[in-house]
Formats: sequence, structure tokens, C-alpha cells
Amino acid sequence: MSYLDQITSPTLLLDEKICRSNLQKMADKAKRHGMNLVPHFKTAQSHIVGEWAKEYGIKEITVSSIKMAEYFCGQGWENIHIAFPFNPLETKKLNELAKNQSISVQLINEAVTEKLTNELEHPVGFFIEIDAGYGRTGVEVTDFGLIEAILRKAKKSKNLSFKGFYLHPGHTYYIENKKKIYEESIAALRMLKNKYRTEYPNLVTRVGDTPGCSVIDDFGDVDEMGPGNFVFYDMMQVNLGSCSMEDVAVALAVPVVDIKKDRKEILVHGGGVHLSKDVHQEPDGSKNFGEVVYLNENGWEIPIQRSFLKSISQEHGIINASDELLTKVKIGDLLGILPVHSCMTADCMGGYLSMNGEKIDHAESVTGK
Amino acid sequence: MSYLDQITSPTLLLDEKICRSNLQKMADKAKRHGMNLVPHFKTAQSHIVGEWAKEYGIKEITVSSIKMAEYFCGQGWENIHIAFPFNPLETKKLNELAKNQSISVQLINEAVTEKLTNELEHPVGFFIEIDAGYGRTGVEVTDFGLIEAILRKAKKSKNLSFKGFYLHPGHTYYIENKKKIYEESIAALRMLKNKYRTEYPNLVTRVGDTPGCSVIDDFGDVDEMGPGNFVFYDMMQVNLGSCSMEDVAVALAVPVVDIKKDRKEILVHGGGVHLSKDVHQEPDGSKNFGEVVYLNENGWEIPIQRSFLKSISQEHGIINASDELLTKVKIGDLLGILPVHSCMTADCMGGYLSMNGEKIDHAESVTGK
Repeated sequence: MSYLDQITSPTLLLDEKICRSNLQKMADKAKRHGMNLVPHFKTAQSHIVGEWAKEYGIKEITVSSIKMAEYFCGQGWENIHIAFPFNPLETKKLNELAKNQSISVQLINEAVTEKLTNELEHPVGFFIEIDAGYGRTGVEVTDFGLIEAILRKAKKSKNLSFKGFYLHPGHTYYIENKKKIYEESIAALRMLKNKYRTEYPNLVTRVGDTPGCSVIDDFGDVDEMGPGNFVFYDMMQVNLGSCSMEDVAVALAVPVVDIKKDRKEILVHGGGVHLSKDVHQEPDGSKNFGEVVYLNENGWEIPIQRSFLKSISQEHGIINASDELLTKVKIGDLLGILPVHSCMTADCMGGYLSMNGEKIDHAESVTGK
Repeated sequence: MSYLDQITSPTLLLDEKICRSNLQKMADKAKRHGMNLVPHFKTAQSHIVGEWAKEYGIKEITVSSIKMAEYFCGQGWENIHIAFPFNPLETKKLNELAKNQSISVQLINEAVTEKLTNELEHPVGFFIEIDAGYGRTGVEVTDFGLIEAILRKAKKSKNLSFKGFYLHPGHTYYIENKKKIYEESIAALRMLKNKYRTEYPNLVTRVGDTPGCSVIDDFGDVDEMGPGNFVFYDMMQVNLGSCSMEDVAVALAVPVVDIKKDRKEILVHGGGVHLSKDVHQEPDGSKNFGEVVYLNENGWEIPIQRSFLKSISQEHGIINASDELLTKVKIGDLLGILPVHSCMTADCMGGYLSMNGEKIDHAESVTGK
């Protein structure tokens, strides 16, 4: 029986072969550059995908909330890093977690450092997050006053230990010149390493974002890379040039519920609650919420003539259909949609179906939000 | 102990008082117009909110998927209508559901009507969905050929019974002149009722969308209204003029993790996985992902000086902060965010916390997606 026979409603498919190939390629790349790969598991949020990752030598992971860290606790990870400015309201939960699991957090201000200094009951590592131009979070790269204030406060705690500097150059998502961003990021991390390594000889530097880690081939002396999305990739990454459509490891299977040939429209059950509302723009300015692929017993194939989701609402999706698709499709068929942003789609769906019909876990299916 | 004391991570608050007032107002309006209110529960997706609704005379509800219908089954609803073009892959599930629950579905083509005619094992009602200008789904209002083909096919089934015409004028969400849309919608439904009521004397007409049902005061001879979002409202509806900010019944509580006074920015734990990525545009073209409110022991208050979420990623939110807010706020505080699109936020969060600290159910917390 094909995995397709068990699908009657929107279902997120995960192609293990493609996912493993993505893991393998990034692990090889890290190795080639002498770097430690610490993938960000906010994308897959899955124990099973975690087990696959271990086969490529991955020993530590990153997550983006304490809840996600809780999910991965006890799964044999040498360390789980929470790459989000630590939320001081969760200090008690951190103490619980750090009892039995090596954990590190991210610090960017004195207030939270002080709270942890006073209240931590178990050893916890920390990175200082550095902002070298992205502008979302982190200590500005030249704000040595703040860096040193954090280090000073942390030194008072026997439980807090400084691991190094973390830099997420997220502007690779919207600025063309990724090489320049990486030159700046590498230079910033090198400068900080040189400045602080006498005092902290074991400090490491980490850089991480999928567009950069996918295409850059000079990481200077940065020690670790922490991309997340690469395990699945998605249409946003295809459009950024990080990967090809063949590298996208997840597709949302959607049932066809109506066809309007005259308008070249296909109505599917598949909307914002399944895919999320992430969108990219076609060259002509129209919106694209995901690319159509044809499902078969082994996974999916990429059509010669493109079709894509041109609009979605909560549960509805309307496909702008090619002539090729209109010839093949009938009501009651299933189509595949390669998502614009796979991290969000996976979080919406809270679980996957493999090509051999097995369920693959996702944190959301167990813990709720 | 205040409900606030139990919050350490992003949490969706539901103010019962505001929600009940929204239910009361819409129930009163329906009554005033001699209409039956059949709210769309894709917004709340909650048994508890369903119980509140019953107190205002609501006896039937609408949902948007068979999975959601399953959630509301056995809760004493006189009928559950699935307002989505029926997905033929779910015929078996429909048969299961219709054993013990009065159900109606939506039909817009012959293929699915034929399938149900052949395979239905229990009585199920159906509406024909009409498209009178929105362009998302439905039979075009003048396509009598298709309407009659559906009716003819359905007549062959002893289990399928025609209930009437359903019209969702969703273009009220982006076209200013809602009065004109309603005049056209009412005229379309009246024409269809007149044309088919000799053959189907009990047929009803239903119109439903929150912007229209909130502001229109002439529903002609339409029998039923089916708005959904009004139970909670949200910033999109405030901006459409459907309600005031005081009518928004849900707010996402988010922890403050960093403050950058010089940039007037506050970093919170609250992003796309909590709020969804729905966005509206400020008059100056900048993006707004939700409006800041100040939380207190009884709920929240609307600030004099506005602050709003100017950007979000998967878990991060950055607030464009007013001077007033910057004076009050400190790291570790909780702020409230009135969402842009409450249906999507509720679906992301899968549950609510009431002002007396009690958990309120949501379908997603139980069934997964």
C-alpha cells in the first residue's frame, strides 16, 4: 500500500532521502572547513530527524525556546543551545532542565545575566549574541562596555560559564551580497575572539543562517556553524539561491476539491493553518504561497510547467494551474505543495508522514504551544 | 493569585466578558433582523466558547473541515455545517460523523455530489455555495446549469437533502463599499430563492462574513447569518471598521526579553509560530503584526500612546515602542498583543488562558493538525 492511500486531508510529507542528503552535504561542508555543525532544530523539531542527524556526526543542537529544549532533553545530545535571548521568566524551568542535560543559553543584557547569576542552581553555558548588521537582536559588535558588563556579572556565578560569541546574520535573507555579509560577520567574530581569548582561551565563535552556510565558501576561523532550515529547505531558499527545488525535503499533500478550467484555477484543501502565511513574490509582482509538485508512490516530481498557490485563506488554497496540470488533475486527487517557509509549515502541521507511510514526530504534536 | 503569575511563555489570553458581549451583540442583531445566527467556529474552535454561545440562543454552528466537525460532535449542536467545498476523500469520515450528528456540507460541483449520492450511508444536508463576486469558491450566481446539475444528481440520493444557498462575500475584507457588496449578495440570494423555492419550499439562504455582518443594517430577506471572527474580532477588523479595539477579546501575552531604548525597540518572545504571519499596513507603509496593550489583573487596557509589533520572525517579535511604553516597561515584564488575525493566532496557539487563570480548550490542542 502506498503512503498516498492513507491521506484524506492536508498532510505534511517528509522525504527522508532528500533530508539525509541535505544533512550529509552540510556535515561534509562543515568538516571541509574544520567547523563543528550545530544545526538549529527549530525547523524539524523532531526526535526522528535528530536520530538521522546523529548518523552524520552531529552531536549538539540548537533550539529557539525552552519548550523546544524540553522536547529534546534526554535524547542523548551532548549540548542543547537555546538560541534566543534568555527569557528571565523561565529561570525555574531552566534549572529543571539543567539538572540532567547540558544546556547553553544566549545573553544580551545585564538584567538577565544578573538574574541567572543569582538564581541558577546547575551549570549552564552561555553565548553572547552579537549583532553585526542584521539589527534583530544581540549586542552591537562594538559595544564592548555591554559585552564586558555581561562577562563581569556572569563571573560572579559558579554556574554560568562563557562559551563564546553567536552571530546570526539574518540579513542574508534579503540582501543580495551574502559574501560581503559573511566577510563582515567573520571579521566581527575574529576581532572578538582575539580580544577575549586571553581571558577565555576556550571560547568559540558560531555563525548560522541557511542562505549563508549554503553558499559561502570562506568561513575564516569561525569555529561552528548553526544553520537550521537546510534540513528541509523550501521555496524561499530556492529563490535565494541556497538550493535547488530538488533539495526541498517536505511537501504538503493537499486534496483537490474543485477545478475551474476556464479560470485555470484549482481549489485545494490547504491554507494558512497548514502552510503558514509566508509568501514570496513572482517577478510580475503576484503572490506565491507554494509551488505545485506531482505526488507519486516514491515521493514527488517537479512539473515541467509550473503551477503555484496564488492565494490562500485559513483553509482554502487556490492554485494558478498550468495547462499541463489542468490536463492531468481531477477532483479527489492529491497534489503536493513545496512550502515557502518549511519551518513555519512544519510548526503549523505538527507532524510528518514518511514515504513509507510512517508518522514522524514534531514537538508541536506532543507539547502544544 | 492573578492569572498573570502563571505565565512564563507566550500565552493566548481570552477575555470572557468581551467575548460574551460580542456574542450578545451579534445575537441581538440577528434577532432584530429575524435571522438565524449560525456562527462559524473556525475562529474559537472551542467547546467552552460553544457553551457560552448557547446562552445567547445559538443552536447550530459552522466549521471549515471535517476534523473540526469531529471536534464539535456530541456537544449538543442541532446541526454542524462544514462550510468548505466537500473533500471527497473524506466521505468515509462523513459517514462516521453523520451516524450520530446532524451534519450539512457544501457542494459546488457534480463530481463530489455524485460521489456522495453513491456513497452516503446516513442523511446529510447540503448547501450550494454561491459566488457572487468574491471569486474564491462557489458556483457562479448565474450558472443555473451547474446548480441544476447538482440538484438533479442529489435528488437520486435518499440521504442527501438540499438545505439552501450559502454565500460568503469575502470581498468585504478588501473593498470599501460593503453596502454595495451586500446589496448584490442579497439580490443574488433573493433571485435564487425565488427561482427554486417552488421546488424546495424549505430552502434557506445564508450570508456570512464578519465585516459585513458587523456593519450592514439591511439583510433583505436572507434567512441566516454565519460570521465567524466576530466572537473575538482582531486588529484587521478594527482597521476595517467592524469593531473598536475594546471589542477584541484575545491578546497574546508575551515576555519582554530585551529593550533598546535608543532605537525605541522592545524584543519579546512572540513571533510567527504564535501570532501567524498575518500583517496589516500602517498609513506610512510600514508593517504591523499586532498592537500592544498593557496587561493587568483584570485583563488589559489600551495605551494612550500606540506601540506595535513592527517585525516578527519564527519566535522573535520587535515592538516599535512609544515613549510611554519605554518609561513603564522592564525586562521580564509581560505585554499583550492584540493580533492582526485572531482565527490564525488561536489556531497557532491551540488554547487560551482566561482572566481567572483557567485553561480554555481549542481543537488544535487535542487533535493536532
